Order: sequence, then C-alpha cells, then structure tokens
Amino acid sequence: MSESLGSFTVHAKDGNARRATLMTAHGPVETPTFMAVGTKATVKAMTPEELSQVGTQVVLGNTYHLHLRPGEKLIQKMGGLHKFMNWHGPILTDSGGFQVFSLSQLRTMSEEGVEFRSHLDGGKYFISPEKSMEIQMDLGSDIIMAFDECLKYPATDEEIKKSMDLTHRWLLRSKAAMTRAQSLLFGIVQGGLSLEHRKYSLAQVTSVELPGYALGGFSVGEPIELMHEIVKDLGPMMPESKPRYLMGVGTPLDLILSIDSGIDMFDCVMPTRVARNGTLYTWAGKLSIKRTEFKEDPRPLDLECDCYTCTNFSRAYLRHLFLSGEILSCRLNSIHNLHFYMSLMKKAREAIAAGTWAAYRDFCLTRFVKKETQVGN
Amino acid sequence: MSESLGSFTVHAKDGNARRATLMTAHGPVETPTFMAVGTKATVKAMTPEELSQVGTQVVLGNTYHLHLRPGEKLIQKMGGLHKFMNWHGPILTDSGGFQVFSLSQLRTMSEEGVEFRSHLDGGKYFISPEKSMEIQMDLGSDIIMAFDECLKYPATDEEIKKSMDLTHRWLLRSKAAMTRAQSLLFGIVQGGLSLEHRKYSLAQVTSVELPGYALGGFSVGEPIELMHEIVKDLGPMMPESKPRYLMGVGTPLDLILSIDSGIDMFDCVMPTRVARNGTLYTWAGKLSIKRTEFKEDPRPLDLECDCYTCTNFSRAYLRHLFLSGEILSCRLNSIHNLHFYMSLMKKAREAIAAGTWAAYRDFCLTRFVKKETQVGN
Repeated sequence: MSESLGSFTVHAKDGNARRATLMTAHGPVETPTFMAVGTKATVKAMTPEELSQVGTQVVLGNTYHLHLRPGEKLIQKMGGLHKFMNWHGPILTDSGGFQVFSLSQLRTMSEEGVEFRSHLDGGKYFISPEKSMEIQMDLGSDIIMAFDECLKYPATDEEIKKSMDLTHRWLLRSKAAMTRAQSLLFGIVQGGLSLEHRKYSLAQVTSVELPGYALGGFSVGEPIELMHEIVKDLGPMMPESKPRYLMGVGTPLDLILSIDSGIDMFDCVMPTRVARNGTLYTWAGKLSIKRTEFKEDPRPLDLECDCYTCTNFSRAYLRHLFLSGEILSCRLNSIHNLHFYMSLMKKAREAIAAGTWAAYRDFCLTRFVKKETQVGN
Repeated sequence: MSESLGSFTVHAKDGNARRATLMTAHGPVETPTFMAVGTKATVKAMTPEELSQVGTQVVLGNTYHLHLRPGEKLIQKMGGLHKFMNWHGPILTDSGGFQVFSLSQLRTMSEEGVEFRSHLDGGKYFISPEKSMEIQMDLGSDIIMAFDECLKYPATDEEIKKSMDLTHRWLLRSKAAMTRAQSLLFGIVQGGLSLEHRKYSLAQVTSVELPGYALGGFSVGEPIELMHEIVKDLGPMMPESKPRYLMGVGTPLDLILSIDSGIDMFDCVMPTRVARNGTLYTWAGKLSIKRTEFKEDPRPLDLECDCYTCTNFSRAYLRHLFLSGEILSCRLNSIHNLHFYMSLMKKAREAIAAGTWAAYRDFCLTRFVKKETQVGN
C-alpha cells in the first residue's frame, strides 16, 4: 500500500462500491467520504473542533467566494486557508466555475475565460483556468478542481458538445498552470444528462493523467432520477485506480445510490443549510423540528444517534430554540445533520470492508426512500 | 465555614471589596461573580460546555420570556430549567418585573399585580408576586428574585415613594409564596437615584430576613456616574453577611467600581450583545473588529488573553467572519467577551484574597477609563 501524496489505495470492493484511502498533503481521506462545505472559510455555525468531532475528514472551500472576500492574497499572507480557518485536515477547493455561472452578473464568456461582476458589490473580475489555479494554489488547497464551464439545464446537444470541448481545453490549461506539488488536481466530466455526451467527456478528461476525476454539472435542477441513471452507468466506467467525486450531491439516498455506482467522494450544502431551517436527518427519516408534536417530547432528536445534540438535548428544547430564533438552534441542528451524514459514510465504509454493502444499502433504501419526505417517529 | 444551602462565607475583605462563597443547591458561587444572561434558556451562541470553559458559574434566566415561551409548565415537565438547557451549575431567575415594565404592552397595575399583553403575540397575562414565585419555582431556579415594580427614569419623589412601598408589600407576599426549600429568595432595593430613598428602601427590604439582597432599578437610562455615587454609599450599608447583587450592570469599569463599593454579584447582556455586533473587550480597551486596520492583522484579538478565540484565530479571520455575517463570528466574539468578563472577576477575587485589591482596581481603571471608548492597540 502506497502512502505517497495523491495515492489512492482501494482496500475492498463490494459490487461497484469501493472502500479506499486517498493520501493528501494534510493526511489521508477514507472513502466513501462526505465533505463539509465551508464556503467562506467556515462551515456555517461549526468550529473546526466540532467538525472533527462529527467525523469530518475534508472541508470544501469555495474559490469564487474567497476570491471576492477576503481575497486569496490576504489568506495566503495569513498562512493559507488551513491556518486562516484553523482547519488542519485536508481542504478541497472548487474552481469557482459553478458560482461564476450561478451567482455572478453580466458574464462574458470567451476562449480565454469568464469576465463577470461580483454579486457582492458589482466589481469586475476575470477568471480563467490559469487564474483559478493561481487562486486555489494561493489558498494552499490540497485538492484543486479544474476550471470548467457549467452549462445551464436544459441545454441543446450542440451547446453541450461545444461546452465539453471548451472544458477540455480549459482542463489542459488548468493542468499546465499547476505549479504546486502538494496540491492534487482533479478533472471534471461534464456532458449534461446524456450518457453519450458524458462518455465523450469522460474519454476527454481521462486522456489527461490526473490524481482524481469528478462528475460535475449534476444537481442543477434536473429530476434526480436522471442523474442516478447516468451515474449508474458512468461511475463504473471511471478509472478504477482514481478517486471518483460526484460534485454537489446530495441527500442520504443520493449518496447511498451513488456509492452503489462506484462513487467515492461527495459534497453538499444540504445538511448544514436545512439544519438552519429546522430540518433534521435521522435514521427514521427527515423531520421538521418546529412541528407541534415535538412540543413536549423529552426524547433525543434521533433515537439511534450519539452526537452531541442527541446526547444532551431533547426535541422539546430543540423546538424551543428553533422557534425562538436562537443561534444555538443552528449550531445543534448543524452538528446533528453533519454527524448523521458522516455516520452514514462511516457505516458505508465498514459495510464495504465487511462485504455487507448490499445489506447496508438495502437497509438505507428502506429507511430513506419511504421516509425521506415524512416526519420521523 | 458553613456550607449549608444559602450560606454566604466571606473569606477576605480588602477595603469594601469582599471575596466570598455563596452556597446554592447547584453548588458554590465564588464572588465577586459575573452571571451570564441566558434569556430564553440559552446564553446566546454558547453551549453549556463553552460557558463552563470561559469560567461561568451562574446562568441567569428571564422569567418573563420563559413564561411566554415555552412556558414554565413545559420546562417543569421536561425536568426543570437545568435539565432543559443542560446547564447543571447554579441558575438565577429574575422576577419578570423588569421585562413586564420594559417590553410588554398595555400594562394595568394594581395592588394585586400587573396585567399585560405579550410582546410576542398580544396575548393577555397577569403576574403577581405569587405568580412570579410560582413560575420561578417551577423553573427550578436556585436564586429567585422577589417581584418588584420597576419605575421609569426619571420619576417624581412621590412616585418613587409609592413604588417602594408597593414593592415592599410585594416582597412580603413573595416571601410568603416561597414553598421550595432549594431556592434562595433575594429581595430587591429600589428608590431611584436618591440616596435617601434608597436608604428607606434598604431598611424596608432588609427588615425581611433573606439569603441575599439586590439593587434594582439602575441601568435604566440614567448617567452612570449617578449610579456609582449611590452605590458607593449604599453598598457598604447592605448587610455584611449576605450577598449583594447589582442587577443589570455593566461595563468592565462599572464592575470594578462596584466591587470597590462592596458589591458581590452582577449580570448584564452587554458582553454577549455587543459581541454579536463586533465589539470586543480586551485588556487594552474596547475594539470594533470590523475596522480596516485589522484586515491583515495576524495577531490574536487580545494579546493578553488565553481564550479559545484568541488561542486559535487571528484578527484578520475574525474581521472576515464578521463582515461575512457568519454565525461563527457571533460564537467566537461571545466566547471572548464572556471569557474577558469572567477573567476580570477571577482576577478581582484573587486580588481581594491576596490583599492587593487597590492595585488591581487602579490597574483596571487605568486601562478601561482611558481606553474604554477607544480602539485597541
């Protein structure tokens, strides 16, 4: 078993599901893994210690946001993103592409890159593959994502084809711009919701030797079943010896189905975002803590959970905090939801290693498919 | 040294400043002490563990707020306020009087009590001395405050006199309504900003044998110098063998001056409230973290502080979090400010015990009088 930087060691396979270790400059990442989203150099409402306590291995930083505020040069001056936010585990940064295409205003696309105006103050910016790499390297990111175009959904065949070719040229430029040995560059497969386009893009992207490959352009408003259909075929086609990352996904159910298709890495704002709105994931399904039925409920949120929130507080208290708009509500809910996601992944790793993946997958499907839109017990 | 419930043991005196221990049903309180305000069954942005870590001994709960939401009967059903919010140290509750007079609408005063409408939903409520005691006992409070009338400032001599007499009759009714042996009832001295009135009220209140006495009705908009003048005379007149509590006060400077006048206990929303607005107390004076001068400042907030925030994060990061409106900003700022207040009190206790109170007081005065309204170094 190699432990050199960027090595990806598959310890066990069970069907298409894999149990592996990716080595980064800030330590190993056990996969399958869910990465916590820390958009503006903080995972909302959480300290770094709490992230570790819930089982977080990797924190994701958003290049677009950090570039606009406080700026990567400032962060570099402060010792890099790890030191700035006091997170000393692995950090993955996205390329900024997704946010440039979803948040910014007045975009002007060219072969060179994208000019846009900040959603914060209207200031003019330009990001190219080279600029994206520079920002991510300045941040000191362990895993750097190639700069890609994120098409709107739906898009025509012609638009998709043109976009894939541009994304490929940008990948070559991204790789050429990489000068930081400690950072691992991942390429991004695009191609919309057509398996044929996806296979075309996969061939393009994997023609470039890289330490990891990602699927981008999902979770952009399409029916989620379409994504799962494609990932079912596409996942196993991705290089066996490299980590496979499904970007921006998803619900507990999405994660389980995708691991079953051979995916190793995930990220999503969902567990922390919905936590702040009072929605909690439990092993008995999703629940909304504001419901009247929890008013005098002395039980923990999730009867099968040993997180800080479930160990110390009742549903009645969590409901009270939420209705009172207290900051502690966001905190306790975020801790629980992240702990739930991390436990879901830990149990997946254990099941794959034990050769019991199918049983675990079916257990999760029974629990989440039926109950994901219901209120818990 | 007695350690029975309600005992107050003075270990040392230095001038009028005292170092003592008050025994409550949830353990000892070392005085002088600053109590953290947990209005709605949570000290804003803090977990119970973090409160302990910064040195909090007593949490204050607000009877008015908890009565309206979630209601003391619900909290009692959940095992009491300690269990509900998972704080197992001493809890002091106010009587609800102050909020009834400052927050509620359409008040109707009578000898019996106060009828008012909730600031939340306009619902009609009635609080009397008996009702206030019942609520505080249902909450399971360790220190219960007598129900008093809080006059507006300024008030006429006649209004003050009438109010003091009513407050005294209400104190007798409060004491008669106390049926919970584990709770200590404190009486409240009123009398506006006249020393003569205050002495009259003090004589009334201390004619009732109680485990502690408080000064209420300060910090209601008067010039703070007026309060200090009165407390300087009044503090030493309060019973030597009982804890003296100055309600709703104050700044670091207010605390030091009041300890010098023989006060033992304090509470104030200030350290947590201003923290959320980016104002931090340091040993070099107050500072506003949003200022441009901190943009690239790699130093900790307070160079003389060993709190979690100062140990782990830079001014540049704290400024970034504040400008980004991140929850972690409220958290880290609240931790620091509470830690600062608790350290100020801890050093005061040590100084009084060591017989070096005057030197410590003067050190604080030099630092805070000159710099309290300035930005730190």
